[in-house]
Amino acid sequence: MRTLFQPRTIAVFGASTNQAKIGYRVVENLLQGGYQGTVYPINPHGGEILGCPVFQTLTEIGDEIDVAVMAIPARFVFDAVVECGKKGVKHLVLISSGFSEVGNIDEEERIVHYAREHGMRVLGPNVFGVFSDASSMNATFGPSGILPGHVAIITQSGALGIAMIGKTAAESLGLSAVVSVGNKADIDESDLLEYLGRDERTRVILLYIEGVKNGDRLEQTLRWVTRRKHVVVIKSGRSKRGAMAAASHTGSLAGADDVFDAVMKQCGALRAESVQDAFNWVQYLATAPAPVGEDAVIVTNGGGIGVMATDACEKYDIALFDDQKRLHEAFSEVMPDFGSSKNPVDLTGQATAQDYEQALEASLAEDGIHAVMALYCETALFDTDQFGGLLRKTFERFRELKPIVFTLFGGAKIEALVRELRREGIPVFANVYEAVSCLGVLYRAWRNHNKEIKEIGRLLLPLDRIDSILRTAGNDQRGFLLAHESSAVAEALGLQMPQSRVAGNLDEAVQAAESIGYPVVMKIVSRDIIHKSDAGGVALDLQTKDEVIDAYQAIRRACRAYKRDAKIEGVEVAEMVHPGVETIIGARQDRSFGPTVMVGLGGIYVEVMKDVAFRAAPVDRATALEMIADLRSFPLLMGVRGEKRKDIEAVADVIIKLSHLIDQCRDITDIEINPLVAYDVGEGAKAVDVRILFQNPGEVR
Amino acid sequence: MRTLFQPRTIAVFGASTNQAKIGYRVVENLLQGGYQGTVYPINPHGGEILGCPVFQTLTEIGDEIDVAVMAIPARFVFDAVVECGKKGVKHLVLISSGFSEVGNIDEEERIVHYAREHGMRVLGPNVFGVFSDASSMNATFGPSGILPGHVAIITQSGALGIAMIGKTAAESLGLSAVVSVGNKADIDESDLLEYLGRDERTRVILLYIEGVKNGDRLEQTLRWVTRRKHVVVIKSGRSKRGAMAAASHTGSLAGADDVFDAVMKQCGALRAESVQDAFNWVQYLATAPAPVGEDAVIVTNGGGIGVMATDACEKYDIALFDDQKRLHEAFSEVMPDFGSSKNPVDLTGQATAQDYEQALEASLAEDGIHAVMALYCETALFDTDQFGGLLRKTFERFRELKPIVFTLFGGAKIEALVRELRREGIPVFANVYEAVSCLGVLYRAWRNHNKEIKEIGRLLLPLDRIDSILRTAGNDQRGFLLAHESSAVAEALGLQMPQSRVAGNLDEAVQAAESIGYPVVMKIVSRDIIHKSDAGGVALDLQTKDEVIDAYQAIRRACRAYKRDAKIEGVEVAEMVHPGVETIIGARQDRSFGPTVMVGLGGIYVEVMKDVAFRAAPVDRATALEMIADLRSFPLLMGVRGEKRKDIEAVADVIIKLSHLIDQCRDITDIEINPLVAYDVGEGAKAVDVRILFQNPGEVR
Repeated sequence: MRTLFQPRTIAVFGASTNQAKIGYRVVENLLQGGYQGTVYPINPHGGEILGCPVFQTLTEIGDEIDVAVMAIPARFVFDAVVECGKKGVKHLVLISSGFSEVGNIDEEERIVHYAREHGMRVLGPNVFGVFSDASSMNATFGPSGILPGHVAIITQSGALGIAMIGKTAAESLGLSAVVSVGNKADIDESDLLEYLGRDERTRVILLYIEGVKNGDRLEQTLRWVTRRKHVVVIKSGRSKRGAMAAASHTGSLAGADDVFDAVMKQCGALRAESVQDAFNWVQYLATAPAPVGEDAVIVTNGGGIGVMATDACEKYDIALFDDQKRLHEAFSEVMPDFGSSKNPVDLTGQATAQDYEQALEASLAEDGIHAVMALYCETALFDTDQFGGLLRKTFERFRELKPIVFTLFGGAKIEALVRELRREGIPVFANVYEAVSCLGVLYRAWRNHNKEIKEIGRLLLPLDRIDSILRTAGNDQRGFLLAHESSAVAEALGLQMPQSRVAGNLDEAVQAAESIGYPVVMKIVSRDIIHKSDAGGVALDLQTKDEVIDAYQAIRRACRAYKRDAKIEGVEVAEMVHPGVETIIGARQDRSFGPTVMVGLGGIYVEVMKDVAFRAAPVDRATALEMIADLRSFPLLMGVRGEKRKDIEAVADVIIKLSHLIDQCRDITDIEINPLVAYDVGEGAKAVDVRILFQNPGEVR
Repeated sequence: MRTLFQPRTIAVFGASTNQAKIGYRVVENLLQGGYQGTVYPINPHGGEILGCPVFQTLTEIGDEIDVAVMAIPARFVFDAVVECGKKGVKHLVLISSGFSEVGNIDEEERIVHYAREHGMRVLGPNVFGVFSDASSMNATFGPSGILPGHVAIITQSGALGIAMIGKTAAESLGLSAVVSVGNKADIDESDLLEYLGRDERTRVILLYIEGVKNGDRLEQTLRWVTRRKHVVVIKSGRSKRGAMAAASHTGSLAGADDVFDAVMKQCGALRAESVQDAFNWVQYLATAPAPVGEDAVIVTNGGGIGVMATDACEKYDIALFDDQKRLHEAFSEVMPDFGSSKNPVDLTGQATAQDYEQALEASLAEDGIHAVMALYCETALFDTDQFGGLLRKTFERFRELKPIVFTLFGGAKIEALVRELRREGIPVFANVYEAVSCLGVLYRAWRNHNKEIKEIGRLLLPLDRIDSILRTAGNDQRGFLLAHESSAVAEALGLQMPQSRVAGNLDEAVQAAESIGYPVVMKIVSRDIIHKSDAGGVALDLQTKDEVIDAYQAIRRACRAYKRDAKIEGVEVAEMVHPGVETIIGARQDRSFGPTVMVGLGGIYVEVMKDVAFRAAPVDRATALEMIADLRSFPLLMGVRGEKRKDIEAVADVIIKLSHLIDQCRDITDIEINPLVAYDVGEGAKAVDVRILFQNPGEVR
């Protein structure tokens, strides 16, 4: 991939002297952008562009070609790719559009197939190109004048990507690389992250995604990349309607948004809602020093804006330094009479520029303070003209030592100052929520970095036994397991379940009940009867032998009447489960991310309150516990109203096991345990109903 | 109040020639701001300021004085107020600080008391002054050069208020009035809303609040003002910590944020999180035409940003026009080959300026489209230089006809264009979420306006009976009602309750059980035993006469053992309630807003999931039903998993009754019905447990 970012030579198919053409813009950007290698424009008409000779064909060129950029109509692309293959080109950048994004899928596949067979990697088609600071290469038809720096952008949207490049220059944001991924026919985000994750110039990666294709690889890649670089992700198509719009626009399916969101968190990627937020974040993350602790302080000359910053701290999860004694010591000297050295530290509107500067100095000097939010309201009594110098000086003092964000609030002078300082790379905002959100994201990144990660080992599962159950079921052309088969899988996993036996006749039913102990429940076992209750195939709370006998006969009679030709395997006799807190654990092969695992509380909580937590599978114990704690209904498991804490460890066990099963056994598409009844701590959790869907390995789905 | 905003004469106490002094700034702003009345500076030293003669005392002035502004030390204020009283001044604007905000409460009260006795209204103390466009009066020490316009600002924070004034000028936002309310010792937000709600110049009111003092009056005032003007509210102190900070800074207590939020919605006020949002909103609301329907369209030249706008529409509750046929008819002519006439209407990056303009024209022409979000990504192929003209022209065409918001995304030229157009009052944004949020708030305001409001009549309640129950209980020096007293109140309200009788002896208990019908529950009745279960004072599910006899004796024995000297009124025998959906209805005197009412579902939902809805009381049926529908757990009442819909009407009845009771009977501080069990539709809802706290009217709490 290095060659794509640092090619020695670039050929441009479709190079043109017509300044309105993409083929001209690419050559112009390469030549005028200071590209350190050699550019070979190609056009059947020959001639020259901006003083650079144009070749009529690729073969004419004597040099080896590292990268070929194509800005030619779709119908000519394949032939050009064949030429490149013969020439031994290493990377193709297919700017040309008119492929899968408009339904022309076969041609795209043909091109990529040919390219891969001939050792070429393909970026695109339907991209605006690549910029790489490493070789001063602007191989795009986007804006010129890209500033060098430490932020890399990977974008699925062309139009937005080009506009973003323009915006970076306007906001003095320096870039290490920009790549448009377009249709992702070959090279995708993960490939690029692999490279940029090791690229020394890059400190922060901004990823704009519309749809995820190989989510599990993306997840695996992000996991390690986020340990080395900050990764900010924008994914549009958050809403259902937005996801539909995304699908119509790039031809890629947007995954379910809550799974995406959960997986990004799990990987340590920082998801932004808007481009504005993302830009603020990457700019801040690229320059701010890492904090050494959680205690932040708000320094303000206006009480109202201090209160707002406090609200924003709660929203963005920033802890405020609360050691009253040390706060008092640090700030009492610079504090006017009516000020407050509580946090927010309120210097009041009476504060002079000097007071303000001293208060920020005091924040820097106090070791207990790890980050600073400096707020300033324009007042009638404070000379705004000198303020720029003060802020520059203060920022220089803080730069390497402590994270700081500034919020300035006021009139035209202040607004101009904000713009000016921002252009100088000083983190100054006009909106306190934006400022605090930057510090918040720095903390999120820092907490991710500090989180110990262990390789998740492969949990040893009795896959042979499980496979054999699936094979047996598969012979029946079923896509689901029967109750006793699901139970057998659960048993193989070592899950706690209600005691249960399948009785083939009345005697066996009575024997089973006697040995399990009353009360018991009974259920019909038949692959032909899915809705057991509707068929009269269920009896609950049977207290005596006589009740078992009656129920057995009633169930068989009812089921026969319900479906005359149903093949009945028997009647299951099971322990009646005593009540606890009902949870649901699910695991499935997600369309975007592959194996995922889910936990929720009780049927109603999941169905009505949508109170669930997802992760990519497999998960370790720490993650399983974190999932449980993420639930809004978590207090129910901790014990409310004087109840005991439930056996959260046992619930976590089940999450871990299902997460490994769904990962190791890809034939299983869905597992759901509903309910998994959690008892008091130490008493475990029982899997009352286990449902498993699978794809028959012998069949094509 | 009109005199405060349109005084003929203003005296300024503490007028000064020292330009660093507030007393100079106020006079300067008045004289140079074009104030249409006469200014009388007052200072014992006499002289003149900016050519205006200074009077040594108020009495020297021959003219009548409408408003006296005081910028003198706190200790001199009272005497000056006395002078004003003698002179017949109508309004006092006390800029001076050093009163209740620093604990000097008595002096503040003395001043206000004196002023009110002498017919003067007091603004402040601790304010920066008043600006009123009606008389071109800038009686503040804030910035000069305030632009005239249609937005009024009422602010509790001085520093933030001054900064806001500066910001309005920087953003070309015209103001009709600005008032700083400071300590609100006399004039508060409601007084000002009363005036501004009728002020012709004012179209939008921006209210910055830190703490609410007379919430019920604020609520009443907002209710009618929001029918005439848009009201945008910022209330800091949303978070717990923020509320604490607000309290320390202005000395006013911030009410519980969720009650505040609910009441604002109920009143039709539009709450903004940040000042930035609020500014965007007021600017948009002041100029945008009202929509005539809900169907909005997104027109874009970039797919990615279109998807983001779609996400934002879901977030801000904007409906997208979905008539595919009409969309196709409207846009097919201007649509490039690969574009999409679905909504978002995607013209693609190939679109020319002309295509773009035509598409917006088509949106204007199509009657089915009621509002437009126009998005533009800077592309390499579109001439940005001419774009400003196009947008100006388009905006002029839309101005009076349909709401439109623009989002432009790109480099330095685009950013400069955004600033330029914004200064001209065109709703252009760099962040699509900001643009869509403005349209969203216009729709919220529009829906509020369209909502039919009926005067909530006074529900006839048997207040005599209730009062007599409270009086009886009050004689006991209790702050709570006993179970049978609460039941009597509930009965007086006509609530459905489980049948119940208090038995004084065993025979009565048995008789009660026989007449109610088995099973029954029994509970001790004693004012000395609060925790009945702990005392062994409860027995459930009693199925026979014998069980009732045993339970009666067991309860009496246990309670006597639990508390030997407990006075036992009897034992309550009640119908055992069959299960349904458990709701909680509460009503209380809120510290900020007075009578409020609350509904939630089941104990766990309220306690763990915080799933509750509040309103200011009393409420009508529509509001009660809206409260129920606001609950996240609402689907439980609609019937999940094939269950029948519950009797929502019956739940609403109870909400309505409690809301009127808490409003009419202010001695009751808290009522809680927990649970109110809701049965299937038509079967009502039973108040199983009613708890009532009250303040003894005879006592001082």
